[in-house]
Amino acid sequence: MSRSQTDAAVEQRLGQARDALAERGEDALVCFPSSNMHYLAGFEEEPMERHLFLFVTPETELFVAPAMYDDQIRDASPVTDVRTWSDGDDPTVLLESVGEELGLAGGHLLVDDRMWALFTQDLQATFPEATFGLVSEVVDDLRLCKDEAELEALRKAASISDAVSEEIRALGSEAIGMTEAKLAVEIEERLADAGGEDLSFETVVGSGPNGARPHHRHGDRPIEAGDPVVLDFGTYVAGYPGDQTRTVVFDGEPPAEYEDVHDAVLEAQTAAVEAIEPRVPAEAVDRAARDVLEKRGYGDQFLHRTGHGVGLDVHEPPYITAGNDRELEAGMVFSIEPGVYLDGEFGVRVEDLVVVTEDGCERLNDSPRGWRSL
Amino acid sequence: MSRSQTDAAVEQRLGQARDALAERGEDALVCFPSSNMHYLAGFEEEPMERHLFLFVTPETELFVAPAMYDDQIRDASPVTDVRTWSDGDDPTVLLESVGEELGLAGGHLLVDDRMWALFTQDLQATFPEATFGLVSEVVDDLRLCKDEAELEALRKAASISDAVSEEIRALGSEAIGMTEAKLAVEIEERLADAGGEDLSFETVVGSGPNGARPHHRHGDRPIEAGDPVVLDFGTYVAGYPGDQTRTVVFDGEPPAEYEDVHDAVLEAQTAAVEAIEPRVPAEAVDRAARDVLEKRGYGDQFLHRTGHGVGLDVHEPPYITAGNDRELEAGMVFSIEPGVYLDGEFGVRVEDLVVVTEDGCERLNDSPRGWRSL
Repeated sequence: MSRSQTDAAVEQRLGQARDALAERGEDALVCFPSSNMHYLAGFEEEPMERHLFLFVTPETELFVAPAMYDDQIRDASPVTDVRTWSDGDDPTVLLESVGEELGLAGGHLLVDDRMWALFTQDLQATFPEATFGLVSEVVDDLRLCKDEAELEALRKAASISDAVSEEIRALGSEAIGMTEAKLAVEIEERLADAGGEDLSFETVVGSGPNGARPHHRHGDRPIEAGDPVVLDFGTYVAGYPGDQTRTVVFDGEPPAEYEDVHDAVLEAQTAAVEAIEPRVPAEAVDRAARDVLEKRGYGDQFLHRTGHGVGLDVHEPPYITAGNDRELEAGMVFSIEPGVYLDGEFGVRVEDLVVVTEDGCERLNDSPRGWRSL
Repeated sequence: MSRSQTDAAVEQRLGQARDALAERGEDALVCFPSSNMHYLAGFEEEPMERHLFLFVTPETELFVAPAMYDDQIRDASPVTDVRTWSDGDDPTVLLESVGEELGLAGGHLLVDDRMWALFTQDLQATFPEATFGLVSEVVDDLRLCKDEAELEALRKAASISDAVSEEIRALGSEAIGMTEAKLAVEIEERLADAGGEDLSFETVVGSGPNGARPHHRHGDRPIEAGDPVVLDFGTYVAGYPGDQTRTVVFDGEPPAEYEDVHDAVLEAQTAAVEAIEPRVPAEAVDRAARDVLEKRGYGDQFLHRTGHGVGLDVHEPPYITAGNDRELEAGMVFSIEPGVYLDGEFGVRVEDLVVVTEDGCERLNDSPRGWRSL
């Protein structure tokens, strides 16, 4: 089994996390199977109903895990201290003894932001004197700026999105009459053929009025001539996801207002990209896109934030949204995806991933942003 | 958009949940996007970083949701009271006003078992006088026994698993030399072609020594003649998953001990199935499988519980494990999947889903359980 994060990267991150815990006076962080566990320990697993935790303290780190995961953890992670329990055991007995050994009883514990309530309540019951915060308080600062290996994976994932987007747009009139679901399958097969691992999220094919719902996935509606179709998809490569959106008219004449809307969205996207540089607050980038769409008369139809960070999670900090005064730094990766949604008619969204550089940003996606088929 | 759960089913379940809350003296339950939200309100969505909750009290129910999900919730759910917030707003302001209106401030709130700590800590901060339990305390009793529509979907999902299993086993010597990953793609394409929606979980193809790791998924190892190969997969149909395992030797002569291990696992599976009937505790079914494997000398190599419930979640109660004295009832659906894992050599697991009937159980899977290719 190959290790998706190198031991050197994991050991560096664990060292940084231990130091940050010590500096803040925290007693431990407790990860659940999540991107935090993957980032800090190199072990990737879906959330599960069994107790599987990574404890990191200022001094050490260890896993508490179901016995049947022992080998897989050792294969994936340089963390060698794995305490196991078996089905039929009460895992809280092991939790208690680990807590005693690590001196957590009355401590302040940072739990994984995505830990299930089932387990946070269990930790509260096991350590009734402890108080709780979130792992992100320490780990977000580590994860926000991507290292070279992470950027390489993100670039590769972006190039797969681009290549598949171009192939799909080349379908032209062949796409007319296909259902959204069928086109989604076409996209997903091509993502897999191009070397993609899992989908970044359920593929969005929003045709005609379905495109006016930002989080419509795909349904049974056949694509008609003249339909604007929102295509939003991506795939993971080496643990990192692609995420790219184009809005396309495969054939025929689009609705009268469409060209103006598409042009406004592109102008907003460009304005946001141009606003990006180190020390600019995230909300200023959102404002740049929003200003354009307000000026063009579509402010009320821009229903969501301008973007989200992308890393081991396809939605992670920094969020490019009003109210987020976090300053951008070189190495942050996020989406820029303004959209306009005309209820009952159509939607337009154009999305690229960008990485912040020393003096601006670089787009990770570079397929054509126009609306015509290729 | 079709509704994956009928309005009548949803309204009945909401009524039952309200009654159960009243009877137990609970103030509310709060679902996060999860199978509980899907079950109770008909709205299915992935967990997300935005505040999207379903509140149910003894008197009423309402959604708190991002504005961009408003239409999708109304399409999917008969719950018509949807309170929205927009990106850039502080969603806790809406939470506070809803809490005031519903009188939750000092109440006892049941939060979704799979709600992220990010949100449970937010609820704790918003309602500092409240105390918390888990939604499962009320909803598990509703979800444990499946209704006819649920059974129909589970039967269909099981029949797809069976059909694809038979197709794959018919590959025979053609499978030799294929990597596990390639065979997983073959399986997943056939599941989709047969009408499957999303995969129930990442497909398991565990060849030779990889099969000895119960939760190995698939890797680059080519399948060799004589390899035992654990094939564990399934797909969702109408919201409900299939989950079936066979251990197959595609071609050549298996290791010397293999036939005895496979026979022992089949004997254990049969014993567990025969132990199932209403009023039997779940742990007695686990014990029936374990007794056989202990008697045959493989007790220490049976590394996990005998099974798990299957419904909107592919792993849900009832868990068929030591320590679970929950009594079986007609309509419960769960897996029976004993396995033996010989470290560094091979593994054998055989899994079927069953539904408890008035006087025993019925298997939902019926493809051949032997180990030869078909």
